[in-house]
Amino acid sequence: MKPIKVGLLGIGTVGSGTFNVLKRNQEEITRRAGRSIQITMVADLNTDRARELTNGECEVVSDGNLVVNNPDIDIVVELIGGYGVAKDLVLKAIANGKHVVTANKALLATHGNEIFKAAQQKGVMVAFEAAVAGGIPIIKALREGLTANRIQWIAGIINGTTNFILSEMRDKGLDFDVVLKEAQRLGYAEADPTFDIEGVDAAHKATIMAAIAFGIPVQFDKAHVEGITRLQATDIRYAEQLGYRIKLLGIARRTDGGIELRVHPTLIPAKRLIANVEGAMNAVLVQGDAVGATLYYGKGAGSEPTASAVIADLVDITRLATADPEHRVPHLAFQPDQMVDTPILPMAEVTTSYYLRMQVADQAGVLADITRILADSTISIDAMLQKEPEEGETRTDIIMLTHQTKEKNVEAAIRRIEALPTVAGQVTKIRLEQLG
Amino acid sequence: MKPIKVGLLGIGTVGSGTFNVLKRNQEEITRRAGRSIQITMVADLNTDRARELTNGECEVVSDGNLVVNNPDIDIVVELIGGYGVAKDLVLKAIANGKHVVTANKALLATHGNEIFKAAQQKGVMVAFEAAVAGGIPIIKALREGLTANRIQWIAGIINGTTNFILSEMRDKGLDFDVVLKEAQRLGYAEADPTFDIEGVDAAHKATIMAAIAFGIPVQFDKAHVEGITRLQATDIRYAEQLGYRIKLLGIARRTDGGIELRVHPTLIPAKRLIANVEGAMNAVLVQGDAVGATLYYGKGAGSEPTASAVIADLVDITRLATADPEHRVPHLAFQPDQMVDTPILPMAEVTTSYYLRMQVADQAGVLADITRILADSTISIDAMLQKEPEEGETRTDIIMLTHQTKEKNVEAAIRRIEALPTVAGQVTKIRLEQLG
Repeated sequence: MKPIKVGLLGIGTVGSGTFNVLKRNQEEITRRAGRSIQITMVADLNTDRARELTNGECEVVSDGNLVVNNPDIDIVVELIGGYGVAKDLVLKAIANGKHVVTANKALLATHGNEIFKAAQQKGVMVAFEAAVAGGIPIIKALREGLTANRIQWIAGIINGTTNFILSEMRDKGLDFDVVLKEAQRLGYAEADPTFDIEGVDAAHKATIMAAIAFGIPVQFDKAHVEGITRLQATDIRYAEQLGYRIKLLGIARRTDGGIELRVHPTLIPAKRLIANVEGAMNAVLVQGDAVGATLYYGKGAGSEPTASAVIADLVDITRLATADPEHRVPHLAFQPDQMVDTPILPMAEVTTSYYLRMQVADQAGVLADITRILADSTISIDAMLQKEPEEGETRTDIIMLTHQTKEKNVEAAIRRIEALPTVAGQVTKIRLEQLG
Repeated sequence: MKPIKVGLLGIGTVGSGTFNVLKRNQEEITRRAGRSIQITMVADLNTDRARELTNGECEVVSDGNLVVNNPDIDIVVELIGGYGVAKDLVLKAIANGKHVVTANKALLATHGNEIFKAAQQKGVMVAFEAAVAGGIPIIKALREGLTANRIQWIAGIINGTTNFILSEMRDKGLDFDVVLKEAQRLGYAEADPTFDIEGVDAAHKATIMAAIAFGIPVQFDKAHVEGITRLQATDIRYAEQLGYRIKLLGIARRTDGGIELRVHPTLIPAKRLIANVEGAMNAVLVQGDAVGATLYYGKGAGSEPTASAVIADLVDITRLATADPEHRVPHLAFQPDQMVDTPILPMAEVTTSYYLRMQVADQAGVLADITRILADSTISIDAMLQKEPEEGETRTDIIMLTHQTKEKNVEAAIRRIEALPTVAGQVTKIRLEQLG
């Protein structure tokens, strides 16, 4: 089957991420989508940089019109941002019968109704997973995963810049201005951070989520938008004393009288999972009447996390546009003729870390014997805990955490340790994963 | 457009949840799916109970064959469980050209390859979101949301019973046997809890996720399965002292040599978000090469949470089976002609709780004045913090957390408080959400 041809409008941070991930994971993505997805054309004002980034592997132009008017292009990916040129090109692409993928939350929150209507009339998709919470598939969860539910409310940490700043203010007790400068230095905040710190970016995203959750048009102009610029370190400290954390939340809630749509700093109980989402990470908490609360967490920005969402949309459109049964979503994600038989490893060959607890005689040389056995099996120790023997006891517990090693090495070492006359009974072994 | 007709095999906990949610949210689900979805036939051995649960609104039979052979039925929902009758009926439904939705992880983890092959040959869908992590749309995330990624590993708390037991063992320092009895009394563990506590249920789910993540066949027989029955309170305590929590994880990891597929108690750093998933909740952490780590959290079992996933599958099939452009996934989740114009509330009409900080003179009667003003505006106080004045200061901070009230009430109260001669400067107002 011939490849799906994609034209990229803008090859900045997200555009280059999309190009790189699509190329790096080409084989696996094709096995999932059922067809190869290729970026064949890129429009960017900086054509030199665009040529460099794409290694001469696709046509580079400076005028986006050449992409949206190219009859060979199946899907247009808009990564220009803003409302001007981006809107014009998206509407032209739709008019030309092309599917569109966009990460442009500002455009959709303000002109989404017009754009979706045009797309509906032409029978094309406008996909925008990347517009909200970057790599987290929250649009898909709301639009498809939770369709059984009457959604009651959504509360999201949907701006990484402000969450980074709030985390730093709390951790270090610093004021907003100081942390903002640090965030800019580290690349977590832009040179002009207004859209982020004033809550506008979060409000764009909340507006889009509200529309999907409640079946209402996008209406950014009615959102209450309040940023974190006036937040004082004092209040973060007092909130902490009362058992709360302050987060910038985008909230959409259904009430009897209407919909609440608001972005503002919010105290939330420190024990909630979402209160513990730190740094530049995003998380969205959704309350549905059937499912209860579900939470979605991940990176909300950045080159490859956002590209992950853009490409998921490309695969979705590829799968949907090819509407015969063989090319719907495959049962096991990969097309049936594209499964592989990578072996499942026997447990002896698994690599992980270990918690080992053993009861030993409280006498000299015991630890030396044990550490020698571990060293013989090339197992290195990450942490150790040795308890004082209890009053009147002659034995004591030793607990060791190992670095990563193969299970068979640990099993061999345990057999030797258990054979030591100074070790009582069996060694307790529990596996350990850093998940980092 | 005529309704999609659904036949239910088994109307126990999940079946009745499916029936109830589909009925309660009928209008909203139809607006999303583009067609009405109706359960028209139910097969259950207990026909009396089935008739009672369905209020005579659909045909009730005792023989599932009557459902899968009924030419009027479009989709068969299998909620019988196990490998015997369930497998037979699923394969018959497929042979009859019907789409199938199932929550049966045991069946899919052991006979999935045969079932998916049959479905592929007949061009029907077998959807199984409810088979893994209940109401959390993790199958959709893995199969569609993360298609750009080379998935590196998955680690999930995917059995609520064992997570409840482990949470209780840690919180109360109790031994496994004691907590298991409590869990059974509370309905978190079944009378025969073997499948849960021995890790079999988690391994079924991990097997399915591994297949989707890596494009390999389901092969439950090669999974390493280890439960929590031998876990001692001592080890939970030692782990805690070393900064770790013990969770029963289902792990699927891609390595150079092959795939690791294993379920066992695992130490994980206490600071990780997933380490703080407590009680009967589920969470799945997925590491992709482009997106990094994403986490999905929610209820992994129960009547309506599982029904949420079953119905999402019904909507998916309804949307996909009707393959003309108007019935793909709508841009804003609801069909374009089914949007509503529920108003967005002005901020004055929003209801929430508040954190109020004010600087007051340290003298008698101040607090009485403030609480009187709040009472006049029918604002009740949930918590209060009053600081001692600093050395040499004559003013002090009062912090109040209010119960829920309308923003306009709080604004009115603040204006009156700020007018008090004993209050200096402005009142700081930050909104508060329990998110509970």
